[in-house]
Amino acid sequence: MSEARVRASFARQKFMATLGARLARVAPGEVDIEVAFDEKLTQQHGFVHAGVTTSIADSACGYAALTLMPEDAAVLSVEYKVNLLAPAVGRRLVARGRVKKAGRTLTVCTADVVAESDEGEKLVTTMLATMMTVRDRGSLKD
Amino acid sequence: MSEARVRASFARQKFMATLGARLARVAPGEVDIEVAFDEKLTQQHGFVHAGVTTSIADSACGYAALTLMPEDAAVLSVEYKVNLLAPAVGRRLVARGRVKKAGRTLTVCTADVVAESDEGEKLVTTMLATMMTVRDRGSLKD
Amino acid sequence: MSEARVRASFARQKFMATLGARLARVAPGEVDIEVAFDEKLTQQHGFVHAGVTTSIADSACGYAALTLMPEDAAVLSVEYKVNLLAPAVGRRLVARGRVKKAGRTLTVCTADVVAESDEGEKLVTTMLATMMTVRDRGSLKD
Amino acid sequence: MSEARVRASFARQKFMATLGARLARVAPGEVDIEVAFDEKLTQQHGFVHAGVTTSIADSACGYAALTLMPEDAAVLSVEYKVNLLAPAVGRRLVARGRVKKAGRTLTVCTADVVAESDEGEKLVTTMLATMMTVRDRGSLKD
Repeated sequence: MSEARVRASFARQKFMATLGARLARVAPGEVDIEVAFDEKLTQQHGFVHAGVTTSIADSACGYAALTLMPEDAAVLSVEYKVNLLAPAVGRRLVARGRVKKAGRTLTVCTADVVAESDEGEKLVTTMLATMMTVRDRGSLKD
Repeated sequence: MSEARVRASFARQKFMATLGARLARVAPGEVDIEVAFDEKLTQQHGFVHAGVTTSIADSACGYAALTLMPEDAAVLSVEYKVNLLAPAVGRRLVARGRVKKAGRTLTVCTADVVAESDEGEKLVTTMLATMMTVRDRGSLKD
Repeated sequence: MSEARVRASFARQKFMATLGARLARVAPGEVDIEVAFDEKLTQQHGFVHAGVTTSIADSACGYAALTLMPEDAAVLSVEYKVNLLAPAVGRRLVARGRVKKAGRTLTVCTADVVAESDEGEKLVTTMLATMMTVRDRGSLKD
Repeated sequence: MSEARVRASFARQKFMATLGARLARVAPGEVDIEVAFDEKLTQQHGFVHAGVTTSIADSACGYAALTLMPEDAAVLSVEYKVNLLAPAVGRRLVARGRVKKAGRTLTVCTADVVAESDEGEKLVTTMLATMMTVRDRGSLKD
């Protein structure tokens, strides 16, 4: 599917706007999504909530998968697993979604989420996800 | 840990306020978190984003684990896996976090997330999560 | 699919014979598989290897899913996640696979694995798994 | 921990001998385990059972983690998730366990399992795993 279609679909994800997330990069099988640190995204210790890093990793994986799907397909998340490797603190988080194996029905992706700060880049979360190609299901597109 | 401490910790999770989530129930090993449907939480098809159901399931699991931890402990999410079983649509989502096995260092929890609508309650997401008891790590509390 | 078909398929899983595993129970959406403790199944500390508990949990989930599939279907494991909750020691392990959500293409299952000993039954492993219904793929049956 | 200790521990995993598995490579944070195709390892369609690829991936991850642990530590599997990407067929399977993030208590690893055949090497399974460093727990070693 074309980058333009992927970008238009991302723009319809109102939750990404709620997070302040931005689609930073789209290439075949690869999508990066960024979010700036904001107090409204934190958990009780002041770190970014695991649900936020998971959300941008999920969208990065889903859209990475969608780049390799046919034009009439829609993508749905089947399942994912994340490991929270370090507290998500810093200036900005970047989720890098990559297709590991694209199949006709199921596509397996990984995403690493790094936190950027003055000390450089630190890996904070990793995801292993399964995405589904959906076709001919009424109005579901992209 | 006391229900009052758990509720105070939840109140410090600014991301839960951003989602409009509410701590509905706290009991030993059991925590329910609710969120009303809101357009700002949706993905490209108009369903609630998987990251939202994951976020309330993660907090429900984490706080369910915290209820069984000692007073000087803090809880951190180690990892979780979710299956998205059906599109998250309806009036309200409820995540029910339950401790499956409480250990000294690690606690394993499950959460089912249901969507409430006029047709009743439908299971939309299930989580299997590992939480960690952290002690003596400086200012980390709850 | 009929219990007879499920039992015949299990009998073709030569790896289950290698483990000494036995199909203990088949009901719609529910399959139990047992394996007796044997030194040949152990890891370095003398516990049953996590791969063994995973193997019987995977087969229990797969066959639980197959019981709800049409007669011309085959089942394949898409993915699973397990938590190892306690060392697998005792006389016998029993994996109880249960369908949580049966879908047209994907079926989500859980399995708890318990260890039986003179002290009773102890939960040692839990699995959350995704199984796939495969049709019209040549010779793949059951 | 030294390679000699890791090799001695692997030699005590009787289940690896039952599978016919071999420790092919040990380096800091990296362990490869191989198993030759054998009918006794198959599921109902004649593919190698998912439990077998999981078993060698689990041991490869666990020993990769152990290489980075102190001499008095033992390693235990906390949890893992695998995706079965393609049927495990071919002459030989190789699981490549790699440490992604080593921590004081928890170490996160990945493993890719490839199948070797006359057509070359094919990725059949991928694992994301959490391993635990255990110390001062009686007789638990390696």
